[in-house]
Amino acid sequence: MSDLKRLVLDVLKPHNPSIIDVAQQLSVLDGISGVNISIKEVDQETETVKITIKGNSIDYDLVEETIREVGAVIHSVDNVSAGKELVDELETQD
Amino acid sequence: MSDLKRLVLDVLKPHNPSIIDVAQQLSVLDGISGVNISIKEVDQETETVKITIKGNSIDYDLVEETIREVGAVIHSVDNVSAGKELVDELETQD
Amino acid sequence: MSDLKRLVLDVLKPHNPSIIDVAQQLSVLDGISGVNISIKEVDQETETVKITIKGNSIDYDLVEETIREVGAVIHSVDNVSAGKELVDELETQD
Amino acid sequence: MSDLKRLVLDVLKPHNPSIIDVAQQLSVLDGISGVNISIKEVDQETETVKITIKGNSIDYDLVEETIREVGAVIHSVDNVSAGKELVDELETQD
Amino acid sequence: MSDLKRLVLDVLKPHNPSIIDVAQQLSVLDGISGVNISIKEVDQETETVKITIKGNSIDYDLVEETIREVGAVIHSVDNVSAGKELVDELETQD
Amino acid sequence: MSDLKRLVLDVLKPHNPSIIDVAQQLSVLDGISGVNISIKEVDQETETVKITIKGNSIDYDLVEETIREVGAVIHSVDNVSAGKELVDELETQD
Amino acid sequence: MSDLKRLVLDVLKPHNPSIIDVAQQLSVLDGISGVNISIKEVDQETETVKITIKGNSIDYDLVEETIREVGAVIHSVDNVSAGKELVDELETQD
Repeated sequence: MSDLKRLVLDVLKPHNPSIIDVAQQLSVLDGISGVNISIKEVDQETETVKITIKGNSIDYDLVEETIREVGAVIHSVDNVSAGKELVDELETQD
Repeated sequence: MSDLKRLVLDVLKPHNPSIIDVAQQLSVLDGISGVNISIKEVDQETETVKITIKGNSIDYDLVEETIREVGAVIHSVDNVSAGKELVDELETQD
Repeated sequence: MSDLKRLVLDVLKPHNPSIIDVAQQLSVLDGISGVNISIKEVDQETETVKITIKGNSIDYDLVEETIREVGAVIHSVDNVSAGKELVDELETQD
Repeated sequence: MSDLKRLVLDVLKPHNPSIIDVAQQLSVLDGISGVNISIKEVDQETETVKITIKGNSIDYDLVEETIREVGAVIHSVDNVSAGKELVDELETQD
Repeated sequence: MSDLKRLVLDVLKPHNPSIIDVAQQLSVLDGISGVNISIKEVDQETETVKITIKGNSIDYDLVEETIREVGAVIHSVDNVSAGKELVDELETQD
Repeated sequence: MSDLKRLVLDVLKPHNPSIIDVAQQLSVLDGISGVNISIKEVDQETETVKITIKGNSIDYDLVEETIREVGAVIHSVDNVSAGKELVDELETQD
Repeated sequence: MSDLKRLVLDVLKPHNPSIIDVAQQLSVLDGISGVNISIKEVDQETETVKITIKGNSIDYDLVEETIREVGAVIHSVDNVSAGKELVDELETQD
């Protein structure tokens, strides 16, 4: 399999643990160099967050497992970059 | 023939395999350095995705075959860059 | 735990001490290289500010404590970057 | 005559050959370093595409001839850069 | 105290002295490397200006004093950067 | 006189010669390093084009003469940069 | 006095001399490295132009005098940068 360089996830999580804890837990996983989490929506019990994960060889199963362990669930994988080179989506006239 | 440096495809695919699997399968093909896939629309059975492929010498037939093998179909080739140099579309007053 | 590289906080504070004082107090904390504070809203007694904190290894508890000491309260942590590399949120079609 | 460094063409073409074939055919012409083709409009029989051509010394007659050979027609030349240096249009308050 | 690297002030000033004079007077203060002043609003007697001050170690009291001496008043401090590194506000989905 | 580094002209020209020919003719004039021409409006007999000319020491009279020789007329000089350094217009709150 | 690094002027001028002449006259003044002039509005007798002047040590009185000599008048000084470093206005949420 080729290397996953970057993933963008839409995730529904409880308020606890905080996005700080989740970011720190994800960013120490093998193959991950850094994690960004931003709040998209806040409800009474839960919050929708957007997680951007970068690395040299991201292990998606490990990511999914870590997210499940904090009581959160992945709504969708919105963007993925794989291969030797980190490729961005080309802006085109959709 | 000259080298294909970058392709942007509009593709309709079933939910499985995931865009992660498809990105990994495409990104190991000869002449491809990296692949980006982003979700554009999600329906009950299928999802429309935008695939940006970069490489030194992309083999379109191989790409088409790989996409067909995962049960997906190419709606359109929206943008192509060919030649020695990777040229972007010049923004002009359309 | 991995290193917090950047935090964005939404904070409600009294007019005094000023954002200059708060920025100076935060920016001398261990693991912090710089702080930006911008005014988002001003009310009679309080003001809502956005605090962007960058560093090599930010200690969130220390930040929270410092903010409480100046009589302010953290409304929310809006964005966090953790890991070896400072990763930004990838703009996607939300 | 001075060197044509870049051309932007508005072209009406039949669905076949594809923009991949046309890009590859144009990009091997003398004086051309790379070609970008993007789809602007699709009709039942034809499609309107925008072709951006870059090179050190583009031969417009050769380009025109190649485009005619694939059954396409140049609607207009929308932008041209000529000379020793590749100059972009300066954004001004039109 | 840590170093103030940049300040943005909203200031109400009389027409005289001009923003040229005020910029020159501020920019020679210790710890200041440069000053930008732009006109935001002009009234019969006064004008509202935005002052961006950069330096290695800005002395806010000295700035305030200089502004008062030219007959102007600081409406608000809109943005501040402090610390070893000049940090910008992170654009987030407010 | 100091050197003209860049000119932006609004020009009304007949359809022939093409903007390719005009760009090539202008770009070989002394003191000019490159020329960009983009189509702004097309009428039955004429077209309005925007010409961006860059060089080390542009001779405006020579430019005007060349434009007149192709049967075109300069509507206006919309932007000019002169001096040792090529200076752009500073975006301000007009 | 500290050095003026950049000035933006709103100027009302007669059609003659042209903005080319005015740019050339200003750009040879001591302490000025380059001048940009763009047309903002054109009336029957006059035109409103925006003049961006950059240099190491601009002499405003000399600029004002030169502008008066060509029959033009400075409406306002819209932006000024002074000091050792050329500082831009920081975009903030006005």
